Amino acid sequence: MCGFVGLIGIEPAAPALALGLQALQHRGQDAAGLGIHDGRRFRLTKDMGMVTQALPPAPVNAMGGRAGVAHVRYPTAGGNATREDAQPFLTRIPGVLLAHNGNVTNTDELIEDLASDGMHVLSECDAEPILLVFTRGLLSRRPSKHTTDDVLHAIQHVFDHVRGGYTVTALLEVDDEMTLVAFRDPHGIRPGVYGTREDGAWMVASESVALDVLGFSLEGQIPPGTAITMRKDQTPMILPVLPKAPKSCIFERIYFARPDSIMEDGRVNRTRWLMGRQLAREWREKGFEADVVIAVPDTSRPAAMAMADELGVHNREGFIKNRYSGRTFIMPDEATRKAALRLKLNPIKEMFEGKRVLLVDDSIVRGATMARIVEMIRDLEPKEVHLAIFSPPVAHPCFYGIDMPSHEELVAAQHEPADLERVLAEELGADSLTYLSLEGLLKVSGDEMCAACFDGDYIVPITDDERERINADRRP
Amino acid sequence: MCGFVGLIGIEPAAPALALGLQALQHRGQDAAGLGIHDGRRFRLTKDMGMVTQALPPAPVNAMGGRAGVAHVRYPTAGGNATREDAQPFLTRIPGVLLAHNGNVTNTDELIEDLASDGMHVLSECDAEPILLVFTRGLLSRRPSKHTTDDVLHAIQHVFDHVRGGYTVTALLEVDDEMTLVAFRDPHGIRPGVYGTREDGAWMVASESVALDVLGFSLEGQIPPGTAITMRKDQTPMILPVLPKAPKSCIFERIYFARPDSIMEDGRVNRTRWLMGRQLAREWREKGFEADVVIAVPDTSRPAAMAMADELGVHNREGFIKNRYSGRTFIMPDEATRKAALRLKLNPIKEMFEGKRVLLVDDSIVRGATMARIVEMIRDLEPKEVHLAIFSPPVAHPCFYGIDMPSHEELVAAQHEPADLERVLAEELGADSLTYLSLEGLLKVSGDEMCAACFDGDYIVPITDDERERINADRRP
Amino acid sequence: MCGFVGLIGIEPAAPALALGLQALQHRGQDAAGLGIHDGRRFRLTKDMGMVTQALPPAPVNAMGGRAGVAHVRYPTAGGNATREDAQPFLTRIPGVLLAHNGNVTNTDELIEDLASDGMHVLSECDAEPILLVFTRGLLSRRPSKHTTDDVLHAIQHVFDHVRGGYTVTALLEVDDEMTLVAFRDPHGIRPGVYGTREDGAWMVASESVALDVLGFSLEGQIPPGTAITMRKDQTPMILPVLPKAPKSCIFERIYFARPDSIMEDGRVNRTRWLMGRQLAREWREKGFEADVVIAVPDTSRPAAMAMADELGVHNREGFIKNRYSGRTFIMPDEATRKAALRLKLNPIKEMFEGKRVLLVDDSIVRGATMARIVEMIRDLEPKEVHLAIFSPPVAHPCFYGIDMPSHEELVAAQHEPADLERVLAEELGADSLTYLSLEGLLKVSGDEMCAACFDGDYIVPITDDERERINADRRP
Amino acid sequence: MCGFVGLIGIEPAAPALALGLQALQHRGQDAAGLGIHDGRRFRLTKDMGMVTQALPPAPVNAMGGRAGVAHVRYPTAGGNATREDAQPFLTRIPGVLLAHNGNVTNTDELIEDLASDGMHVLSECDAEPILLVFTRGLLSRRPSKHTTDDVLHAIQHVFDHVRGGYTVTALLEVDDEMTLVAFRDPHGIRPGVYGTREDGAWMVASESVALDVLGFSLEGQIPPGTAITMRKDQTPMILPVLPKAPKSCIFERIYFARPDSIMEDGRVNRTRWLMGRQLAREWREKGFEADVVIAVPDTSRPAAMAMADELGVHNREGFIKNRYSGRTFIMPDEATRKAALRLKLNPIKEMFEGKRVLLVDDSIVRGATMARIVEMIRDLEPKEVHLAIFSPPVAHPCFYGIDMPSHEELVAAQHEPADLERVLAEELGADSLTYLSLEGLLKVSGDEMCAACFDGDYIVPITDDERERINADRRP
Repeated sequence: MCGFVGLIGIEPAAPALALGLQALQHRGQDAAGLGIHDGRRFRLTKDMGMVTQALPPAPVNAMGGRAGVAHVRYPTAGGNATREDAQPFLTRIPGVLLAHNGNVTNTDELIEDLASDGMHVLSECDAEPILLVFTRGLLSRRPSKHTTDDVLHAIQHVFDHVRGGYTVTALLEVDDEMTLVAFRDPHGIRPGVYGTREDGAWMVASESVALDVLGFSLEGQIPPGTAITMRKDQTPMILPVLPKAPKSCIFERIYFARPDSIMEDGRVNRTRWLMGRQLAREWREKGFEADVVIAVPDTSRPAAMAMADELGVHNREGFIKNRYSGRTFIMPDEATRKAALRLKLNPIKEMFEGKRVLLVDDSIVRGATMARIVEMIRDLEPKEVHLAIFSPPVAHPCFYGIDMPSHEELVAAQHEPADLERVLAEELGADSLTYLSLEGLLKVSGDEMCAACFDGDYIVPITDDERERINADRRP
Repeated sequence: MCGFVGLIGIEPAAPALALGLQALQHRGQDAAGLGIHDGRRFRLTKDMGMVTQALPPAPVNAMGGRAGVAHVRYPTAGGNATREDAQPFLTRIPGVLLAHNGNVTNTDELIEDLASDGMHVLSECDAEPILLVFTRGLLSRRPSKHTTDDVLHAIQHVFDHVRGGYTVTALLEVDDEMTLVAFRDPHGIRPGVYGTREDGAWMVASESVALDVLGFSLEGQIPPGTAITMRKDQTPMILPVLPKAPKSCIFERIYFARPDSIMEDGRVNRTRWLMGRQLAREWREKGFEADVVIAVPDTSRPAAMAMADELGVHNREGFIKNRYSGRTFIMPDEATRKAALRLKLNPIKEMFEGKRVLLVDDSIVRGATMARIVEMIRDLEPKEVHLAIFSPPVAHPCFYGIDMPSHEELVAAQHEPADLERVLAEELGADSLTYLSLEGLLKVSGDEMCAACFDGDYIVPITDDERERINADRRP
Repeated sequence: MCGFVGLIGIEPAAPALALGLQALQHRGQDAAGLGIHDGRRFRLTKDMGMVTQALPPAPVNAMGGRAGVAHVRYPTAGGNATREDAQPFLTRIPGVLLAHNGNVTNTDELIEDLASDGMHVLSECDAEPILLVFTRGLLSRRPSKHTTDDVLHAIQHVFDHVRGGYTVTALLEVDDEMTLVAFRDPHGIRPGVYGTREDGAWMVASESVALDVLGFSLEGQIPPGTAITMRKDQTPMILPVLPKAPKSCIFERIYFARPDSIMEDGRVNRTRWLMGRQLAREWREKGFEADVVIAVPDTSRPAAMAMADELGVHNREGFIKNRYSGRTFIMPDEATRKAALRLKLNPIKEMFEGKRVLLVDDSIVRGATMARIVEMIRDLEPKEVHLAIFSPPVAHPCFYGIDMPSHEELVAAQHEPADLERVLAEELGADSLTYLSLEGLLKVSGDEMCAACFDGDYIVPITDDERERINADRRP
Repeated sequence: MCGFVGLIGIEPAAPALALGLQALQHRGQDAAGLGIHDGRRFRLTKDMGMVTQALPPAPVNAMGGRAGVAHVRYPTAGGNATREDAQPFLTRIPGVLLAHNGNVTNTDELIEDLASDGMHVLSECDAEPILLVFTRGLLSRRPSKHTTDDVLHAIQHVFDHVRGGYTVTALLEVDDEMTLVAFRDPHGIRPGVYGTREDGAWMVASESVALDVLGFSLEGQIPPGTAITMRKDQTPMILPVLPKAPKSCIFERIYFARPDSIMEDGRVNRTRWLMGRQLAREWREKGFEADVVIAVPDTSRPAAMAMADELGVHNREGFIKNRYSGRTFIMPDEATRKAALRLKLNPIKEMFEGKRVLLVDDSIVRGATMARIVEMIRDLEPKEVHLAIFSPPVAHPCFYGIDMPSHEELVAAQHEPADLERVLAEELGADSLTYLSLEGLLKVSGDEMCAACFDGDYIVPITDDERERINADRRP
């Protein structure tokens, strides 16, 4: 998942980047990094932890800078990524500062290929092969003094070699001027936006909320397979390199992106509301009835509101969410497990007791958390518990940047599709379970979406070896 | 503010206390402490920071214990409280482990009085004078082997000497058995509940949510001026010592307590809903109209829902709240201030643009934050901005345990009451400002409430010197 | 082992105490604590680690104070002592701040005895029972306003109940004035000195070097079984309470104390020099010859100098000592073990090669380190390696405050005394091994010494249970 | 100053490098770094602090590796070097891991020159320009698959462009095999040794003591202007590139190197002994007399021994050195300053009282510490205090890697040479002051030495601008 921001034309750039990055903290809390160019020299710092730990304010405030790139990292499956594996990365020959947001599927192949050209990947992070392929593209044109044309050639070189879903931002000298470059994979699987401000500064980010924080107005989504080059006080160049059929990740809308972000299909909050409305229409046809609609907070709240509106049923806050985790204090038996869940999500008895409850959530992956939630609210003696999920069954792992367990851990992949809702409702202890249909989903969000996790249709080819390696990393 | 839990009959007690304490983390993030008795010996640990920092899981899990007391501290005004000032406190003669939640107004007097009896207060925390007065009460009866009667005598001794609002929990040997004791000041100003579990364990806490986490059912609120003594597998004794007119803090309901907590007047969430409904009725009479009701999250959400229902207007999520603070990254001018607010509370343009917005919040203290929020949403070009506050003007500082600025910083105390809404609306940049009336508030929550911050009616006497000292501590 | 300082009449006392304490850092690096009285109130802080970690300069500098007590702790055998177990300890009824240096042998008995009087020991540290017995003595006279007579009574009460070796310093109000009290066990087993300064301040400490640092002149050793009470600008009272035959710990002279400290028998450096001279005389009688005398640094340096002088042989620096420890970096096999020793103690080849080397060390406890040293220098091809130890065989564990392994780990206790030197020389890989005789040792240091670790003559009675408990703690 | 180690043929290399590095901890305590190649990939980690802090054992033990390079950094004058400025440095095109020990005088010029070739220096550390010039040399031959010839060409390129004193170690693939390369500046100003072990591993280091720790035998000093290439189980190639007149730094012998290190002129300890003997001969001619010779520990100890031997006077330990610093605890006036000195260096009264003392130290730079030492021992009432310094007056700053204050802070540069000893003795409060003559010094150590700090004869040209920049950095 991960999140990035790139900025040019604000001085000092470093604290501004850090503030923008904090708006993307939900995209990664494992590590953070920030690099700038101050007119004379690049500087880069990165470390483990959340933004304020990894990038202590005093040195960041002192870094200054006229342009820069920053990144937050989502924890990898193995959990053994180090500080040195954090983004951004920076080369010396030539000077390029780069970060990305996504997942490269053919890293092993790239590393070997680069090594045969005397180019060494030093970390376990897939941003580094992207950076070196990009650099190789530049150096193949000339050793220094690169032009916009060279950059386009280098991006084409990346598109030719690097497979997966990725949005990239890079800072380097182009045509003798420091330039912020951004580009998105040919299908635009991973998100990326750009915007500007009255003072002539330009910015790119994984999500538009990072622009809001710094008072930038959103100019648009970065088009698939397209490069944008930005400089202070200049109109950016928008240069198609290899645009293919747009396939933006639908799971960003359902679960991952912040509700106040704006994507191709509009405000995420609104999209979730429409998904809820569509789900209500499908749910009603099944003939169930409910006294109250309750969201599992926070993602599901707009969908639950829409369902309540559409069904003419009250929407109530049935859970109080708490951000403190109690997993680390250990009591025997099940006591800790139960306490940890209640600490995170405390149900309000009177919202459930004696009622036919329609519980709304965004998705079911492994199913374990949902089973515990149903078990917990069963203690509050509701009359019925109906589950409504505003997405289809997740039956296929994502290889393009959403962290998911391997195929064998996806609960929806373990059952016959025809029987799934019935069997799973039983397993989860619910009276019924209803998924949003794939057709319903696409009606809402349009069909320029990657929905591989639902339909298994992988737009970017992936070999069996690569699948296996990614799945292996994900096994606990 | 602060929060405490006390527990008897769970083994190991230490991790259970820590889990319960985390449910009260909103009551204090400055320091935390945890003490237990393991059948042989008391053990106590405390440190600065949130629960998981101050009480590292590994040693807490290793502490074991059969009963214990834990505490989270709200940062004091001066901000110079140390680890040694954190609760609980523990005496050796006799062995008493004690924590409280509230504020003592006559600490200076108590410290002098104790010193003249050779009893030394070692910290700046007001729990220590309570503990020593309690201990003096016990020792005045006999040097050791204390009885329930001795304990009641000691609590009477506390009520005779210690002024303010406080709920106390203490662990000590009574009648040759380890006993958890709890008592609440004569007017019951500060909150406190108790509950039990199927396995015969008993628990007390500042708020009922701590009981939920560990699967305890709420037995009731601790009555004012009353002691409760608890032991595993025994029915607790509920012993009135000096009960006076109940005056439970109304500000806990409005702002401080968690929405899922249950107090004398029921679930806090529900109380806020009723306050919102009452406010809607008062607001309507003023003749204003609105297109949308928007809560300043999170406290105001139920009140906003109720206003929307009552007024027949849509309730919409207009702000996305983010828990990350950007105040530490510094850019010149106003840029940081604006970015920090937007990072915390991002407004969604389409909810405001072109609309008559009714913005709902819990209270106005200094007014600075509200002014910045109004300024921020004015940029989104709403047609009108009306503010509705579901409490009366805060015109008097609290001396009984709610952290508030001194009198001269309370914005409502700087204006004529008759003109207040008009003048303040102007200052804040709003088209109108409406407070909930005191009568309206009391209609909802009953009149067994301390509303001194609104009406200046201080039920526990406080001298001018004490007022001055507390105010002095609060000045920045 | 451990070390303490006590101070009255310097303002601010806290930084002065910390500086003095650092001169005793060699006596304990596990934890440190510091308490003061500032004319109004006691304050106490303590934590794990060396002085500068446990007592961070900024808060210590801010503590101020007019008098105080500080302590460094030697790591205990189990290694599981916590921050709460660190000294000093402080009571509230009455206010007494206390630290000691030594070991109490009957702690279990004391804890039970105190509990039956309603007095609770809260930590695993033996300073706390001393403090509570002292307090009980005071309170048995009157509840507050204690006199010098009460203090003497309380010290008598400690001597009556607390067994072991201990030097204690305490700060409390006596005759209405803050007073620094110090007393030493009846035989004066553990060390303790006092001194003064031109400005009328007084100080006590485990070793005289702490006085040097602050510019105090040494007044003398605290006499056995005697109390000293000190106040600024007053001549201290020296009050015998229960003086018995002096038995000061001889192992302090041999190994533990700093060379620049002054004890009953003079400068420690000088005593070690005399021990070396005596050892040379005994060694010569055995008929061995040497080309060079080499000390195992640092303790043995003066003894080696004296041997060289006495024998008319060159004294050379054969090892360079390094304070950095490499034990934590792990390589397979023996490599780490060897590297760690060489990192700590690097031998200089030309000092050993082809020579008859007389290697001087202070004592042999387990024998493992000495075996490794001999193995290491054998690689440098000396002609002969003779070991000379300037103390007798350590055959009996110390129960009075020197940390030693249990009886079964003392290598000297595993062999027949008559054969010991021959057998052990062989085990260690040396050509000969010579211990200083007990008679020789006492000739140097006089016979007012506790030499229980050499002769097994325990002056303070110890039960079999107590021996067993202490030995059990020491087993790895 | 700084220190490095390089290693090939030990597996795992990382913990071995860390152990060797700790033997050089005296050369730099500001930061540490360690990089390895594990047969597949380079890995690098670095951080602020001493070795065990900067390189936490657990991750280092887990790094493995077959070869590597590690470094400790001496704090720079400004004190604002960051983690990113620590060595080693690592390039990706081609893969080269490099560290050095010394100082480059023309960094600004190099950075500009490199930038014009599109090569970006990212840190403030002068190792990075060396690395990039080296890399440029390699790439100018071919883009990858470098040969030994290419390496020699690259080193020639370094010698052509990089001015100053430096010993470099680098790890890279040469002739298709991972190879450890080391080279020393054309005059061999900075030290560097190499050695091997029975198992066929090879090692380079700043000082031979790092070899001792890992059981390597010293093969020799790296010759000036010469490259050595090392691989496991192969005889290294020793390849002269640009050897000029040897000018090894004499100040390493006098003060900086460990006494157990072996340099061109033998064991440092022995050299210091010879310097002391020579000084004694010169001192005697002045007609002074002494009762005792006392070293200011630790560096001066062998020189003091030699003086005592030569003069037939007793050598005594007059100071006990303590490694704990008390500077951070602050008392008013001079108290702290005095206490901090006594904490570090405690004088033993009876060694000074009533005696004519000959105090021996290695050098006088600013003079402030020596003045305080003399003041402190004057309190002990010696009859006379004579200072003997076993080096000539330091009158010229070093630009080749020894950290010294700027010209105006060197006390010897502030006085007429003819009068210096007399005037300075007076300033320092001594009865006399005697420096070792430059002739005497060179008689001992030979004339293949850089003695620029004494005679101002700078063998490597340095421009006025460069002098000024380095001096500016050094001003406090």
